[in-house]
Amino acid sequence: MRFVRYGEAGHERPAVLDAEGQLRDLSGVVPDLAGPVMADLPRINPQSLPLVPGTPRIGPPVGQVGKLVCIGLNYSDHAAELGVEPPEDPVVFLKATSAINGPHDPVILPRGSQKGDWEVELGIVIGRRAKYVTEAQALRHVAGYTIVNDVSEREFQLERSGQWTKGKSCDTFAPMGPWLVTPDTAGDVQALDLSVDVNGERMQSGNSGRMIFSVARIVSYLSELMMLEPGDVIATGTPPGVGMGHTPQRFLKDGDEMVLRISGLGEQRSPVRAER
Amino acid sequence: MRFVRYGEAGHERPAVLDAEGQLRDLSGVVPDLAGPVMADLPRINPQSLPLVPGTPRIGPPVGQVGKLVCIGLNYSDHAAELGVEPPEDPVVFLKATSAINGPHDPVILPRGSQKGDWEVELGIVIGRRAKYVTEAQALRHVAGYTIVNDVSEREFQLERSGQWTKGKSCDTFAPMGPWLVTPDTAGDVQALDLSVDVNGERMQSGNSGRMIFSVARIVSYLSELMMLEPGDVIATGTPPGVGMGHTPQRFLKDGDEMVLRISGLGEQRSPVRAER
Repeated sequence: MRFVRYGEAGHERPAVLDAEGQLRDLSGVVPDLAGPVMADLPRINPQSLPLVPGTPRIGPPVGQVGKLVCIGLNYSDHAAELGVEPPEDPVVFLKATSAINGPHDPVILPRGSQKGDWEVELGIVIGRRAKYVTEAQALRHVAGYTIVNDVSEREFQLERSGQWTKGKSCDTFAPMGPWLVTPDTAGDVQALDLSVDVNGERMQSGNSGRMIFSVARIVSYLSELMMLEPGDVIATGTPPGVGMGHTPQRFLKDGDEMVLRISGLGEQRSPVRAER
Repeated sequence: MRFVRYGEAGHERPAVLDAEGQLRDLSGVVPDLAGPVMADLPRINPQSLPLVPGTPRIGPPVGQVGKLVCIGLNYSDHAAELGVEPPEDPVVFLKATSAINGPHDPVILPRGSQKGDWEVELGIVIGRRAKYVTEAQALRHVAGYTIVNDVSEREFQLERSGQWTKGKSCDTFAPMGPWLVTPDTAGDVQALDLSVDVNGERMQSGNSGRMIFSVARIVSYLSELMMLEPGDVIATGTPPGVGMGHTPQRFLKDGDEMVLRISGLGEQRSPVRAER
Protein backbone atom coordinates (compact mmCIF):
# COMPACT_ATOMS: atom_id res chain seq x y z
CA MET A 1 0.00 0.00 0.00
CA ARG A 2 1.00 3.61 -0.54
CA PHE A 3 0.14 6.07 2.21
CA VAL A 4 0.13 9.84 1.89
CA ARG A 5 -0.45 12.86 4.13
CA TYR A 6 -2.16 15.81 2.48
CA GLY A 7 -3.26 19.32 3.37
CA GLU A 8 -1.77 22.42 4.94
CA ALA A 9 1.67 22.07 6.55
CA GLY A 10 1.30 21.05 10.17
CA HIS A 11 -2.33 20.03 9.65
CA GLU A 12 -1.97 17.12 7.24
CA ARG A 13 -4.57 14.38 7.04
CA PRO A 14 -3.87 10.72 6.31
CA ALA A 15 -4.77 9.13 3.00
CA VAL A 16 -4.04 6.09 0.91
CA LEU A 17 -3.62 5.74 -2.85
CA ASP A 18 -6.17 3.58 -4.64
CA ALA A 19 -5.51 1.38 -7.68
CA GLU A 20 -5.98 4.41 -9.98
CA GLY A 21 -3.51 6.50 -7.95
CA GLN A 22 -6.29 8.64 -6.50
CA LEU A 23 -6.16 9.84 -2.91
CA ARG A 24 -8.63 8.24 -0.51
CA ASP A 25 -9.09 9.89 2.87
CA LEU A 26 -8.08 7.77 5.87
CA SER A 27 -8.94 10.23 8.62
CA GLY A 28 -12.03 8.22 9.56
CA VAL A 29 -9.74 5.26 10.25
CA VAL A 30 -6.63 6.74 11.91
CA PRO A 31 -6.00 10.26 13.23
CA ASP A 32 -2.65 10.61 11.45
CA LEU A 33 0.24 8.60 10.03
CA ALA A 34 2.38 9.18 13.10
CA GLY A 35 3.59 7.60 16.33
CA PRO A 36 1.95 4.33 17.37
CA VAL A 37 -0.13 4.17 14.16
CA MET A 38 3.12 3.43 12.32
CA ALA A 39 3.43 0.13 14.20
CA ASP A 40 0.09 -1.05 12.89
CA LEU A 41 -0.80 0.65 9.61
CA PRO A 42 -4.39 0.06 8.58
CA ARG A 43 -4.99 -2.72 6.05
CA ILE A 44 -8.05 -1.49 4.26
CA ASN A 45 -9.56 -1.56 0.80
CA PRO A 46 -8.98 1.98 -0.52
CA GLN A 47 -12.14 1.79 -2.64
CA SER A 48 -14.18 1.79 0.58
CA LEU A 49 -12.83 5.24 1.54
CA PRO A 50 -13.97 8.68 0.35
CA LEU A 51 -12.10 10.28 -2.55
CA VAL A 52 -10.10 13.38 -1.65
CA PRO A 53 -11.35 16.24 -3.85
CA GLY A 54 -9.06 18.56 -5.79
CA THR A 55 -5.26 18.49 -5.78
CA PRO A 56 -4.19 19.31 -2.24
CA ARG A 57 -0.64 19.91 -1.10
CA ILE A 58 1.20 16.67 -0.28
CA GLY A 59 3.04 16.68 3.06
CA PRO A 60 5.74 14.40 4.42
CA PRO A 61 4.22 10.90 4.70
CA VAL A 62 4.99 10.62 8.42
CA GLY A 63 4.04 13.11 11.11
CA GLN A 64 5.72 13.85 14.44
CA VAL A 65 9.02 12.32 13.39
CA GLY A 66 10.97 11.80 16.61
CA LYS A 67 14.37 11.62 14.99
CA LEU A 68 15.78 11.75 11.50
CA VAL A 69 18.94 9.66 11.43
CA CYS A 70 21.20 9.72 8.38
CA ILE A 71 23.89 7.41 7.09
CA GLY A 72 26.80 9.05 5.30
CA LEU A 73 29.00 7.64 2.52
CA ASN A 74 26.93 4.48 2.18
CA TYR A 75 27.37 3.92 -1.58
CA SER A 76 30.67 2.51 -2.72
CA ASP A 77 30.51 4.53 -5.94
CA HIS A 78 29.69 7.78 -4.07
CA ALA A 79 32.64 7.30 -1.70
CA ALA A 80 34.84 6.81 -4.77
CA GLU A 81 33.47 10.01 -6.35
CA LEU A 82 34.49 11.97 -3.24
CA GLY A 83 37.89 10.28 -3.15
CA VAL A 84 37.38 8.82 0.32
CA GLU A 85 37.75 5.25 1.56
CA PRO A 86 34.46 3.42 2.19
CA PRO A 87 33.82 3.49 5.97
CA GLU A 88 34.33 0.31 8.00
CA ASP A 89 31.41 1.21 10.24
CA PRO A 90 28.30 3.20 9.19
CA VAL A 91 28.78 6.97 9.38
CA VAL A 92 25.85 8.28 11.45
CA PHE A 93 24.51 11.80 11.88
CA LEU A 94 21.23 13.50 12.69
CA LYS A 95 19.21 16.10 10.84
CA ALA A 96 16.92 18.35 12.88
CA THR A 97 13.30 17.24 12.46
CA SER A 98 12.42 20.92 11.97
CA ALA A 99 14.06 20.56 8.54
CA ILE A 100 11.34 18.17 7.32
CA ASN A 101 9.44 19.42 4.31
CA GLY A 102 6.75 18.17 1.95
CA PRO A 103 8.03 16.53 -1.26
CA HIS A 104 7.00 19.42 -3.50
CA ASP A 105 7.46 22.32 -1.06
CA PRO A 106 10.13 24.94 -1.83
CA VAL A 107 13.62 24.24 -0.56
CA ILE A 108 14.87 27.51 0.90
CA LEU A 109 18.59 28.28 0.72
CA PRO A 110 19.46 30.18 3.90
CA ARG A 111 21.08 33.61 3.84
CA GLY A 112 24.67 33.37 2.73
CA SER A 113 24.23 29.97 1.06
CA GLN A 114 26.44 29.46 -1.99
CA LYS A 115 26.80 25.68 -1.97
CA GLY A 116 23.36 24.09 -1.67
CA ASP A 117 23.41 20.48 -2.85
CA TRP A 118 21.06 17.53 -3.38
CA GLU A 119 21.22 13.95 -2.07
CA VAL A 120 18.50 11.50 -3.06
CA GLU A 121 18.18 8.77 -0.43
CA LEU A 122 16.06 5.75 0.34
CA GLY A 123 14.26 6.58 3.60
CA ILE A 124 13.31 3.87 6.10
CA VAL A 125 10.28 4.61 8.29
CA ILE A 126 10.30 2.71 11.57
CA GLY A 127 7.14 0.84 12.53
CA ARG A 128 7.84 -1.06 15.73
CA ARG A 129 10.31 -0.05 18.43
CA ALA A 130 13.75 -1.50 17.83
CA LYS A 131 16.53 -1.89 20.40
CA TYR A 132 19.34 -4.42 20.03
CA VAL A 133 17.67 -6.17 17.11
CA THR A 134 19.67 -8.51 14.91
CA GLU A 135 20.03 -8.04 11.18
CA ALA A 136 17.70 -11.04 10.71
CA GLN A 137 14.98 -9.39 12.85
CA ALA A 138 15.49 -5.85 11.63
CA LEU A 139 13.02 -5.65 8.74
CA ARG A 140 10.12 -6.59 11.01
CA HIS A 141 10.56 -3.15 12.58
CA VAL A 142 10.13 -1.27 9.30
CA ALA A 143 6.75 0.32 8.47
CA GLY A 144 7.78 1.27 4.96
CA TYR A 145 9.95 3.33 2.67
CA THR A 146 9.96 6.83 1.23
CA ILE A 147 12.23 9.27 -0.60
CA VAL A 148 14.33 11.67 1.48
CA ASN A 149 16.32 14.51 -0.05
CA ASP A 150 19.22 15.08 2.35
CA VAL A 151 19.71 18.68 1.19
CA SER A 152 23.14 19.91 2.26
CA GLU A 153 24.92 23.27 2.31
CA ARG A 154 28.52 22.24 1.69
CA GLU A 155 30.21 25.39 2.97
CA PHE A 156 28.12 25.28 6.16
CA GLN A 157 28.75 21.53 6.45
CA LEU A 158 32.46 21.30 5.69
CA GLU A 159 34.17 24.69 5.80
CA ARG A 160 32.97 25.93 9.20
CA SER A 161 34.10 24.55 12.57
CA GLY A 162 33.08 21.13 13.68
CA GLN A 163 30.39 18.69 12.77
CA TRP A 164 28.16 18.41 9.66
CA THR A 165 25.04 19.68 11.46
CA LYS A 166 25.21 23.29 10.23
CA GLY A 167 24.89 22.26 6.60
CA LYS A 168 22.33 19.52 7.16
CA SER A 169 19.66 20.91 9.50
CA CYS A 170 18.52 24.14 7.85
CA ASP A 171 14.75 24.55 7.56
CA THR A 172 13.30 22.79 4.46
CA PHE A 173 16.45 20.68 4.04
CA ALA A 174 14.62 17.35 4.40
CA PRO A 175 11.92 16.98 1.74
CA MET A 176 10.22 13.65 2.39
CA GLY A 177 7.68 11.69 0.39
CA PRO A 178 5.45 11.70 -1.54
CA TRP A 179 4.49 8.23 -0.36
CA LEU A 180 5.09 5.84 2.47
CA VAL A 181 5.27 2.53 0.63
CA THR A 182 4.80 -0.62 2.67
CA PRO A 183 7.49 -3.33 2.39
CA ASP A 184 5.25 -5.76 0.50
CA THR A 185 4.57 -3.10 -2.15
CA ALA A 186 8.15 -1.76 -2.26
CA GLY A 187 9.65 -5.18 -3.08
CA ASP A 188 13.43 -5.62 -3.00
CA VAL A 189 14.72 -2.34 -1.57
CA GLN A 190 18.30 -3.31 -2.37
CA ALA A 191 17.56 -3.07 -6.09
CA LEU A 192 15.97 0.36 -6.55
CA ASP A 193 17.08 3.01 -9.05
CA LEU A 194 17.57 6.48 -7.61
CA SER A 195 18.01 9.73 -9.52
CA VAL A 196 18.07 13.50 -9.30
CA ASP A 197 17.47 15.86 -12.20
CA VAL A 198 18.12 19.58 -11.77
CA ASN A 199 16.36 21.80 -14.32
CA GLY A 200 15.82 18.72 -16.45
CA GLU A 201 19.45 17.61 -16.47
CA ARG A 202 20.34 14.24 -14.93
CA MET A 203 22.72 14.97 -12.06
CA GLN A 204 22.66 11.96 -9.81
CA SER A 205 21.87 8.34 -10.43
CA GLY A 206 22.51 5.03 -8.78
CA ASN A 207 21.03 1.83 -7.49
CA SER A 208 20.49 0.80 -3.89
CA GLY A 209 22.30 -2.44 -4.69
CA ARG A 210 25.51 -0.40 -4.25
CA MET A 211 24.87 0.30 -0.58
CA ILE A 212 27.80 -0.64 1.63
CA PHE A 213 25.49 -1.26 4.61
CA SER A 214 22.08 -2.74 3.75
CA VAL A 215 18.75 -1.56 5.15
CA ALA A 216 18.66 -4.50 7.57
CA ARG A 217 22.24 -3.87 8.69
CA ILE A 218 21.55 -0.16 9.26
CA VAL A 219 18.45 -0.77 11.38
CA SER A 220 20.28 -3.39 13.44
CA TYR A 221 23.37 -1.20 13.84
CA LEU A 222 21.46 1.90 14.92
CA SER A 223 19.33 -0.15 17.33
CA GLU A 224 22.51 -0.98 19.24
CA LEU A 225 23.07 2.72 19.80
CA MET A 226 19.59 4.06 20.44
CA MET A 227 15.94 3.09 20.62
CA LEU A 228 14.32 3.38 17.20
CA GLU A 229 10.72 4.42 17.68
CA PRO A 230 7.58 4.33 15.52
CA GLY A 231 7.78 7.19 13.03
CA ASP A 232 11.54 7.65 13.25
CA VAL A 233 13.07 8.01 9.79
CA ILE A 234 16.47 6.82 8.59
CA ALA A 235 18.00 8.21 5.39
CA THR A 236 20.34 5.55 4.07
CA GLY A 237 22.93 7.54 2.14
CA THR A 238 23.23 8.80 -1.39
CA PRO A 239 24.57 7.44 -4.70
CA PRO A 240 27.08 9.29 -6.95
CA GLY A 241 26.36 12.63 -8.58
CA VAL A 242 26.00 15.19 -5.80
CA GLY A 243 26.80 18.73 -6.92
CA MET A 244 29.99 18.75 -4.87
CA GLY A 245 31.18 15.67 -6.80
CA HIS A 246 30.75 17.20 -10.29
CA THR A 247 33.63 18.78 -12.22
CA PRO A 248 33.21 21.70 -12.07
CA GLN A 249 31.10 21.62 -8.91
CA ARG A 250 27.40 22.43 -9.34
CA PHE A 251 25.35 24.04 -6.60
CA LEU A 252 21.72 25.09 -6.20
CA LYS A 253 20.53 28.60 -6.97
CA ASP A 254 17.27 30.50 -6.69
CA GLY A 255 14.81 29.31 -9.34
CA ASP A 256 16.21 25.82 -9.80
CA GLU A 257 13.97 22.77 -9.69
CA MET A 258 15.07 19.39 -8.32
CA VAL A 259 13.24 16.22 -9.39
CA LEU A 260 14.04 13.13 -7.33
CA ARG A 261 12.89 9.64 -8.21
CA ILE A 262 13.24 6.21 -6.64
CA SER A 263 11.69 3.25 -8.45
CA GLY A 264 8.33 2.40 -6.88
CA LEU A 265 8.50 5.26 -4.38
CA GLY A 266 7.35 8.10 -6.64
CA GLU A 267 8.79 11.49 -7.40
CA GLN A 268 9.63 14.71 -5.56
CA ARG A 269 9.57 17.99 -7.43
CA SER A 270 11.10 20.74 -5.30
CA PRO A 271 11.50 24.34 -6.40
CA VAL A 272 14.55 26.09 -4.94
CA ARG A 273 14.34 29.58 -3.44
CA ALA A 274 17.01 31.76 -1.86
CA GLU A 275 16.18 33.44 1.44
CA ARG A 276 16.70 37.19 1.25
CA MET B 1 10.20 30.88 39.09
CA ARG B 2 11.31 27.28 39.08
CA PHE B 3 9.21 24.83 37.11
CA VAL B 4 9.35 21.05 37.38
CA ARG B 5 7.75 18.04 35.71
CA TYR B 6 7.02 15.08 37.97
CA GLY B 7 5.61 11.58 37.72
CA GLU B 8 6.14 8.49 35.64
CA ALA B 9 8.37 8.81 32.55
CA GLY B 10 6.29 9.84 29.57
CA HIS B 11 3.39 10.87 31.78
CA GLU B 12 4.88 13.79 33.72
CA ARG B 13 2.71 16.54 35.16
CA PRO B 14 3.69 20.19 35.45
CA ALA B 15 4.52 21.78 38.79
CA VAL B 16 6.20 24.81 40.26
CA LEU B 17 8.40 25.15 43.35
CA ASP B 18 7.04 27.32 46.14
CA ALA B 19 9.10 29.50 48.47
CA GLU B 20 9.81 26.48 50.71
CA GLY B 21 10.95 24.40 47.74
CA GLN B 22 7.82 22.25 47.84
CA LEU B 23 6.18 21.05 44.63
CA ARG B 24 2.87 22.68 43.72
CA ASP B 25 0.81 21.03 41.00
CA LEU B 26 0.25 23.14 37.88
CA SER B 27 -1.85 20.70 35.90
CA GLY B 28 -5.00 22.73 36.56
CA VAL B 29 -3.33 25.69 34.83
CA VAL B 30 -1.41 24.18 31.89
CA PRO B 31 -1.52 20.66 30.41
CA ASP B 32 2.26 20.31 30.37
CA LEU B 33 5.48 22.29 30.20
CA ALA B 34 5.86 21.71 26.49
CA GLY B 35 5.37 23.28 23.07
CA PRO B 36 3.45 26.56 22.94
CA VAL B 37 3.19 26.73 26.77
CA MET B 38 6.93 27.46 26.79
CA ALA B 39 6.31 30.76 25.00
CA ASP B 40 4.04 31.96 27.77
CA LEU B 41 4.83 30.25 31.06
CA PRO B 42 2.16 30.87 33.71
CA ARG B 43 2.88 33.64 36.21
CA ILE B 44 1.09 32.40 39.26
CA ASN B 45 1.45 32.49 43.02
CA PRO B 46 2.58 28.94 43.89
CA GLN B 47 0.86 29.13 47.29
CA SER B 48 -2.49 29.15 45.45
CA LEU B 49 -1.78 25.71 43.98
CA PRO B 50 -2.23 22.25 45.54
CA LEU B 51 0.81 20.65 47.19
CA VAL B 52 2.11 17.54 45.43
CA PRO B 53 2.07 14.67 47.95
CA GLY B 54 5.02 12.35 48.55
CA THR B 55 8.31 12.40 46.69
CA PRO B 56 7.54 11.57 43.07
CA ARG B 57 10.10 10.98 40.36
CA ILE B 58 11.31 14.21 38.75
CA GLY B 59 11.28 14.19 34.95
CA PRO B 60 13.00 16.45 32.44
CA PRO B 61 11.56 19.97 32.95
CA VAL B 62 10.41 20.25 29.31
CA GLY B 63 8.27 17.78 27.42
CA GLN B 64 8.11 17.03 23.70
CA VAL B 65 11.53 18.54 23.00
CA GLY B 66 11.67 19.07 19.23
CA LYS B 67 15.44 19.23 19.02
CA LEU B 68 18.36 19.09 21.39
CA VAL B 69 21.16 21.17 19.91
CA CYS B 70 24.61 21.08 21.48
CA ILE B 71 27.59 23.38 21.29
CA GLY B 72 31.02 21.74 21.44
CA LEU B 73 34.29 23.12 22.79
CA ASN B 74 32.65 26.29 24.10
CA TYR B 75 34.85 26.85 27.18
CA SER B 76 38.31 28.26 26.58
CA ASP B 77 39.74 26.23 29.48
CA HIS B 78 38.08 22.99 28.23
CA ALA B 79 39.52 23.46 24.73
CA ALA B 80 42.93 23.95 26.34
CA GLU B 81 42.48 20.75 28.39
CA LEU B 82 41.86 18.78 25.18
CA GLY B 83 44.80 20.47 23.45
CA VAL B 84 42.66 21.92 20.65
CA GLU B 85 42.38 25.49 19.38
CA PRO B 86 39.22 27.35 20.43
CA PRO B 87 36.84 27.27 17.44
CA GLU B 88 36.30 30.45 15.41
CA ASP B 89 32.68 29.56 14.89
CA PRO B 90 30.46 27.57 17.32
CA VAL B 91 30.77 23.81 16.92
CA VAL B 92 27.21 22.51 16.53
CA PHE B 93 25.81 19.00 16.81
CA LEU B 94 22.54 17.31 17.70
CA LYS B 95 21.66 14.71 20.29
CA ALA B 96 18.65 12.49 19.63
CA THR B 97 15.70 13.60 21.76
CA SER B 98 15.14 9.93 22.60
CA ALA B 99 18.24 10.28 24.82
CA ILE B 100 16.47 12.68 27.20
CA ASN B 101 16.27 11.42 30.75
CA GLY B 102 15.07 12.69 34.11
CA PRO B 103 17.75 14.31 36.30
CA HIS B 104 17.93 11.42 38.76
CA ASP B 105 17.13 8.53 36.41
CA PRO B 106 19.82 5.91 35.79
CA VAL B 107 22.27 6.59 32.99
CA ILE B 108 22.64 3.31 31.11
CA LEU B 109 25.97 2.53 29.46
CA PRO B 110 25.17 0.61 26.25
CA ARG B 111 26.60 -2.81 25.53
CA GLY B 112 30.28 -2.58 24.76
CA SER B 113 30.72 0.81 26.41
CA GLN B 114 34.13 1.30 28.01
CA LYS B 115 34.45 5.09 27.82
CA GLY B 116 31.31 6.69 29.22
CA ASP B 117 31.95 10.30 30.23
CA TRP B 118 30.15 13.27 31.84
CA GLU B 119 29.68 16.84 30.61
CA VAL B 120 27.79 19.31 32.80
CA GLU B 121 26.24 22.04 30.64
CA LEU B 122 24.04 25.08 31.00
CA GLY B 123 20.87 24.26 29.04
CA ILE B 124 18.85 26.97 27.30
CA VAL B 125 15.13 26.24 26.86
CA ILE B 126 13.57 28.14 23.96
CA GLY B 127 10.34 30.02 24.66
CA ARG B 128 9.43 31.94 21.53
CA ARG B 129 10.26 30.91 17.95
CA ALA B 130 13.56 32.35 16.82
CA LYS B 131 14.76 32.75 13.21
CA TYR B 132 17.39 35.26 12.16
CA VAL B 133 17.36 36.99 15.53
CA THR B 134 20.19 39.32 16.49
CA GLU B 135 22.31 38.86 19.56
CA ALA B 136 20.52 41.84 21.12
CA GLN B 137 17.10 40.23 20.59
CA ALA B 138 18.12 36.68 21.39
CA LEU B 139 17.36 36.50 25.11
CA ARG B 140 13.72 37.44 24.53
CA HIS B 141 13.33 34.01 22.95
CA VAL B 142 14.54 32.12 26.03
CA ALA B 143 11.99 30.55 28.40
CA GLY B 144 14.58 29.59 30.99
CA TYR B 145 17.58 27.52 31.92
CA THR B 146 18.27 24.02 33.17
CA ILE B 147 21.13 21.56 33.68
CA VAL B 148 21.95 19.16 30.86
CA ASN B 149 24.42 16.31 31.22
CA ASP B 150 25.79 15.73 27.71
CA VAL B 151 26.76 12.13 28.50
CA SER B 152 29.23 10.87 25.89
CA GLU B 153 30.73 7.52 24.99
CA ARG B 154 34.20 8.53 23.78
CA GLU B 155 35.06 5.37 21.85
CA PHE B 156 31.68 5.48 20.07
CA GLN B 157 32.10 9.24 19.50
CA LEU B 158 35.70 9.45 18.37
CA GLU B 159 37.12 6.06 17.45
CA ARG B 160 34.43 4.83 15.07
CA SER B 161 33.80 6.20 11.57
CA GLY B 162 32.37 9.63 11.10
CA GLN B 163 30.49 12.09 13.21
CA TRP B 164 30.05 12.36 17.00
CA THR B 165 26.44 11.12 16.94
CA LYS B 166 27.16 7.51 17.93
CA GLY B 167 28.64 8.53 21.26
CA LYS B 168 26.14 11.28 22.00
CA SER B 169 22.68 9.89 21.25
CA CYS B 170 22.46 6.68 23.25
CA ASP B 171 19.30 6.28 25.34
CA THR B 172 19.54 8.04 28.76
CA PHE B 173 22.52 10.15 27.58
CA ALA B 174 20.76 13.48 28.15
CA PRO B 175 19.69 13.84 31.80
CA MET B 176 17.90 17.19 32.05
CA GLY B 177 16.68 19.19 35.02
CA PRO B 178 15.67 19.15 37.81
CA TRP B 179 14.25 22.64 37.23
CA LEU B 180 13.41 25.02 34.46
CA VAL B 181 14.49 28.34 35.98
CA THR B 182 13.11 31.50 34.43
CA PRO B 183 15.61 34.18 33.35
CA ASP B 184 14.58 36.62 36.10
CA THR B 185 15.25 33.95 38.74
CA ALA B 186 18.42 32.60 37.09
CA GLY B 187 20.13 36.01 37.07
CA ASP B 188 23.41 36.44 35.17
CA VAL B 189 23.83 33.15 33.30
CA GLN B 190 27.35 34.12 32.27
CA ALA B 191 28.51 33.87 35.89
CA LEU B 192 27.33 30.45 37.06
CA ASP B 193 29.50 27.81 38.70
CA LEU B 194 29.20 24.32 37.21
CA SER B 195 30.52 21.07 38.68
CA VAL B 196 30.44 17.28 38.45
CA ASP B 197 31.32 14.94 41.29
CA VAL B 198 31.65 11.20 40.59
CA ASN B 199 31.35 8.98 43.67
CA GLY B 200 31.93 12.08 45.81
CA GLU B 201 35.11 13.16 44.04
CA ARG B 202 35.15 16.53 42.27
CA MET B 203 35.85 15.81 38.62
CA GLN B 204 34.70 18.82 36.67
CA SER B 205 34.33 22.44 37.61
CA GLY B 206 34.12 25.76 35.84
CA ASN B 207 32.20 28.96 35.42
CA SER B 208 29.98 30.01 32.53
CA GLY B 209 31.97 33.23 32.35
CA ARG B 210 34.55 31.19 30.41
CA MET B 211 32.20 30.49 27.52
CA ILE B 212 33.71 31.41 24.16
CA PHE B 213 30.24 32.04 22.68
CA SER B 214 27.68 33.54 25.08
CA VAL B 215 24.10 32.37 25.49
CA ALA B 216 22.86 35.32 23.40
CA ARG B 217 25.43 34.66 20.68
CA ILE B 218 24.54 30.97 20.52
CA VAL B 219 20.81 31.60 20.16
CA SER B 220 21.41 34.20 17.47
CA TYR B 221 23.91 32.00 15.63
CA LEU B 222 21.70 28.92 15.63
CA SER B 223 18.68 30.97 14.54
CA GLU B 224 20.55 31.79 11.32
CA LEU B 225 20.74 28.08 10.57
CA MET B 226 17.38 26.76 11.71
CA MET B 227 14.11 27.76 13.32
CA LEU B 228 14.35 27.47 17.09
CA GLU B 229 10.96 26.44 18.43
CA PRO B 230 9.26 26.54 21.83
CA GLY B 231 10.63 23.68 23.92
CA ASP B 232 13.81 23.21 21.91
CA VAL B 233 16.82 22.84 24.19
CA ILE B 234 20.39 24.00 23.59
CA ALA B 235 23.28 22.61 25.65
CA THR B 236 25.97 25.26 25.65
CA GLY B 237 29.17 23.26 26.10
CA THR B 238 31.14 21.99 29.03
CA PRO B 239 33.93 23.34 31.28
CA PRO B 240 37.20 21.47 32.01
CA GLY B 241 37.33 18.15 33.80
CA VAL B 242 35.68 15.59 31.55
CA GLY B 243 36.90 12.05 32.14
CA MET B 244 38.69 12.01 28.80
CA GLY B 245 40.67 15.09 29.90
CA HIS B 246 41.98 13.55 33.16
CA THR B 247 45.44 11.96 33.45
CA PRO B 248 44.97 9.05 33.52
CA GLN B 249 41.60 9.15 31.78
CA ARG B 250 38.57 8.34 33.95
CA PHE B 251 35.44 6.74 32.57
CA LEU B 252 32.08 5.71 33.99
CA LYS B 253 31.38 2.20 35.23
CA ASP B 254 28.41 0.30 36.57
CA GLY B 255 27.53 1.50 40.08
CA ASP B 256 29.02 5.01 39.81
CA GLU B 257 27.01 8.06 40.79
CA MET B 258 27.32 11.43 39.06
CA VAL B 259 26.25 14.58 40.87
CA LEU B 260 25.97 17.68 38.69
CA ARG B 261 25.39 21.19 40.02
CA ILE B 262 24.96 24.62 38.48
CA SER B 263 24.49 27.57 40.80
CA GLY B 264 20.80 28.45 41.05
CA LEU B 265 19.72 25.58 38.79
CA GLY B 266 19.80 22.75 41.34
CA GLU B 267 21.42 19.36 41.31
CA GLN B 268 21.25 16.13 39.29
CA ARG B 269 22.08 12.85 40.96
CA SER B 270 22.37 10.08 38.35
CA PRO B 271 23.25 6.48 39.12
CA VAL B 272 25.19 4.72 36.37
CA ARG B 273 24.26 1.26 35.16
CA ALA B 274 25.81 -0.93 32.48
CA GLU B 275 23.48 -2.62 30.00
CA ARG B 276 24.01 -6.36 29.92
